Amino acid sequence: MPSKFSKFAIYRKDMNRNGDTICALATSYGGALATIRVSGPECYSIIEKLFFPADSSVKLDEQGGFRIIHGDIREDSELIDEVLVNLYKAPHSYTGEDSVEISCHGSFYVITRILELLVKNGAASALPGEFTRRAFMNGKMDLSQAEAVADLVASDSKAAHRIAINQIRGGFSAEIAKLRSELLKFTSLIELELDFGEEDVEFADRKELRKLVLQSRELAESLASSFKLGNVIKNGFPIAIVGKPNSGKSTLLNALLNEEKAIVSAIPGTTRDAIEDTININGLIYRFIDTAGLRETSDEIEVLGIRKTKEKMMQASVILLVDEAGEKAEEINRRADIIRRMITDPDVRLIILVNKIDGCDKSVVDELSKKIYLDIDDSLLFISGEKHIGLDKLRRRLARIFEKRGVTNEGVIITNIRHYEALKHVSESLNRVITGLDEKRPDDLITTDIRQAIHYLGEITGEITTDEILENIFRNFCIGK
Amino acid sequence: MPSKFSKFAIYRKDMNRNGDTICALATSYGGALATIRVSGPECYSIIEKLFFPADSSVKLDEQGGFRIIHGDIREDSELIDEVLVNLYKAPHSYTGEDSVEISCHGSFYVITRILELLVKNGAASALPGEFTRRAFMNGKMDLSQAEAVADLVASDSKAAHRIAINQIRGGFSAEIAKLRSELLKFTSLIELELDFGEEDVEFADRKELRKLVLQSRELAESLASSFKLGNVIKNGFPIAIVGKPNSGKSTLLNALLNEEKAIVSAIPGTTRDAIEDTININGLIYRFIDTAGLRETSDEIEVLGIRKTKEKMMQASVILLVDEAGEKAEEINRRADIIRRMITDPDVRLIILVNKIDGCDKSVVDELSKKIYLDIDDSLLFISGEKHIGLDKLRRRLARIFEKRGVTNEGVIITNIRHYEALKHVSESLNRVITGLDEKRPDDLITTDIRQAIHYLGEITGEITTDEILENIFRNFCIGK
Repeated sequence: MPSKFSKFAIYRKDMNRNGDTICALATSYGGALATIRVSGPECYSIIEKLFFPADSSVKLDEQGGFRIIHGDIREDSELIDEVLVNLYKAPHSYTGEDSVEISCHGSFYVITRILELLVKNGAASALPGEFTRRAFMNGKMDLSQAEAVADLVASDSKAAHRIAINQIRGGFSAEIAKLRSELLKFTSLIELELDFGEEDVEFADRKELRKLVLQSRELAESLASSFKLGNVIKNGFPIAIVGKPNSGKSTLLNALLNEEKAIVSAIPGTTRDAIEDTININGLIYRFIDTAGLRETSDEIEVLGIRKTKEKMMQASVILLVDEAGEKAEEINRRADIIRRMITDPDVRLIILVNKIDGCDKSVVDELSKKIYLDIDDSLLFISGEKHIGLDKLRRRLARIFEKRGVTNEGVIITNIRHYEALKHVSESLNRVITGLDEKRPDDLITTDIRQAIHYLGEITGEITTDEILENIFRNFCIGK
Repeated sequence: MPSKFSKFAIYRKDMNRNGDTICALATSYGGALATIRVSGPECYSIIEKLFFPADSSVKLDEQGGFRIIHGDIREDSELIDEVLVNLYKAPHSYTGEDSVEISCHGSFYVITRILELLVKNGAASALPGEFTRRAFMNGKMDLSQAEAVADLVASDSKAAHRIAINQIRGGFSAEIAKLRSELLKFTSLIELELDFGEEDVEFADRKELRKLVLQSRELAESLASSFKLGNVIKNGFPIAIVGKPNSGKSTLLNALLNEEKAIVSAIPGTTRDAIEDTININGLIYRFIDTAGLRETSDEIEVLGIRKTKEKMMQASVILLVDEAGEKAEEINRRADIIRRMITDPDVRLIILVNKIDGCDKSVVDELSKKIYLDIDDSLLFISGEKHIGLDKLRRRLARIFEKRGVTNEGVIITNIRHYEALKHVSESLNRVITGLDEKRPDDLITTDIRQAIHYLGEITGEITTDEILENIFRNFCIGK
């Protein structure tokens, strides 16, 4: 395994572009204020060429870290902006290097001028994620924590936020580290036996080892299986709305979307368009799948034979069948059956929504309640999308379905496909170890498999990594992070 | 005149909504990082309820200002984000109050949670410009400086930036203060005379006074007359492109716009769409007026009789007449004459552009050069919009026209219509003073007019202000500034 130092050396070779000190806008354009980040060994010597403290007796490199200095950014005699500069000294900074954050006015012109000035004085424009990459390289966080930083910035719901922040705080890393250190301990003992060659000593108790490997495999598999849940938490719980033309599918979706928008814009200081077709209900994101004709008037149920529509619908965890109060119960049952026959995943839930109840007698509702057939786990709700009747009930129903799946558990949930794949490899390697132990295969074959499991665990946290892996991870970051 | 204290009292009554401590996002959504500002007397007691320093021995209110503290934002036991908090103590902050800036991750969810938490703990959501309004109220800046903060944030070009930053630094305020204090001195002397009643003393030399008032009026008028220039610097120099159909007007405009976009996106760390129809050339913004048919194929020149088109074109400082190399010189002269006849403002310049020269002989160009008639200050350029020939010459020509108008002067230029109107009132009042002195009107009438001039000067810097004026100014700010 490469040591921290050798990783660092590879990194230097690869990333040493215009110099070791990098700069980027860390906030976005368009606010009253903006923050420009500078990090690297030449940070202070560069900043001194363009930043002039209001108190001219202040020497930046004589200041401690975690200090704020007020002053001017100037190019020659021209004043660019009056700013506040946050000083950080290595290793006590985000990147672990000497760092500075310039808080300037949010003008596009001002930001551009300051970035140009930094580059003129020897800083390089940071690549996406380069600050976090340096934090990883300098041992401030492991790779899975670094990845969680991007997840946190992108987090849009309470559940996604909780997973990201747990991962940053090392919850996941701790699980992986525990697994890894147990396996390492045993593999060293077996390797020690091998060193003794023919002497037939047994440092590692084979029964103990088998128990440990079983436990480890179970942990790896349970983490891997949390990926499906993690993925929907991150991207939204997929929901399909289907129904015959004019049953009010669009009206229902719009009613749900508009109510959410109203909630979001009531939060002080925030205005943002909700992402189309995504709804945040009690901290969970629901994503409405655009099945063909969702917003059109064609009857999807009748054309479900068309493979593509069917496939799309089958990505859903919940299917909302929208029908009308004016419809016959037999007809609704017929449609519901078409859908039931297509569902193969036992986790998929069907909710039958009888819409437009505002325009009909109570007796109609009672009649339908009696006659509509429900399979185990199906639900039936009476609503009016237009008049916003029954939507709260629908939201509670959805929330309950997903809560049952453990989204509110405090356990570690993985959301990253890279981690999922590594954990799958870990579990396969450990399977081979168990078979090896059961079949009393030679120790060197067994240790090879344990070593492989350890290798994949190391890939998750970045103990073992390649430039390619790092490039793939950090190129998805935004610039300035 | 109300004292600083009484202004403050009015302000408190008016703005004391949910409490005196305000909060808002100061950067914008969408970056890696975001900054939330909190300001007011309860700032520290509120922040202590949600921010927990990593070093738990740190007591926020025992820290000095200009310190950065690392820690967690929590709601009950739930971790919201790991943040850095900048501390400022009154009066050494932007607002002059106790203030805190929270630097958190740029997630919409995280930002919203922190703002909600601040409000829950007693902070009020800041109104647009409320931080700067407090800075003004607490004597950190005068009103014209506060207005310049919004101009600086919006500044998009070197010239607009220079004006805004000069104004923030008090260049304009100093001119106004000088005017005001001279007038105040004289008016007090005259008022002293009035106190002595019949005694016929003359503390204020009338000749001196007349000279001073003339100088003051001249200064007020020269500042007021800089408004026209300031306005075009802020909003862009208006340019009209006219010409017969298919002369290549759109191609020319697109060529200019695309070259600028390429320059902007070459600046490290920046990507932004240039505002349509505005071009930044050497730090000045040029704004292309959308005359009817600019992007269409109708012949504007032939329909210039239509009042609206004519009016729009007449807002331009420069008119680009686009014609083709294939055209006869007489025809080009005829068109140019139509335009010349319409120009009434002697400052408007005509540039005749002979386009599509890539497809023709040098002899054609020579012939046209000889035969196209130019009035004083007209220009003639041979270009190809399609092949990007001659565009640099055109840009230099435009720059020279506007440089001659003093945009690069270091003098004070006003850009604010409020200041313009106040200065106009000042100059009118001073006119009456001069007439009064010449006609030997009673001293109390003269002092009334001087007082009026002083009043209008005070309105500019905010020595005299009303809630209505303040509302009008600050509602145009963004939230968080």
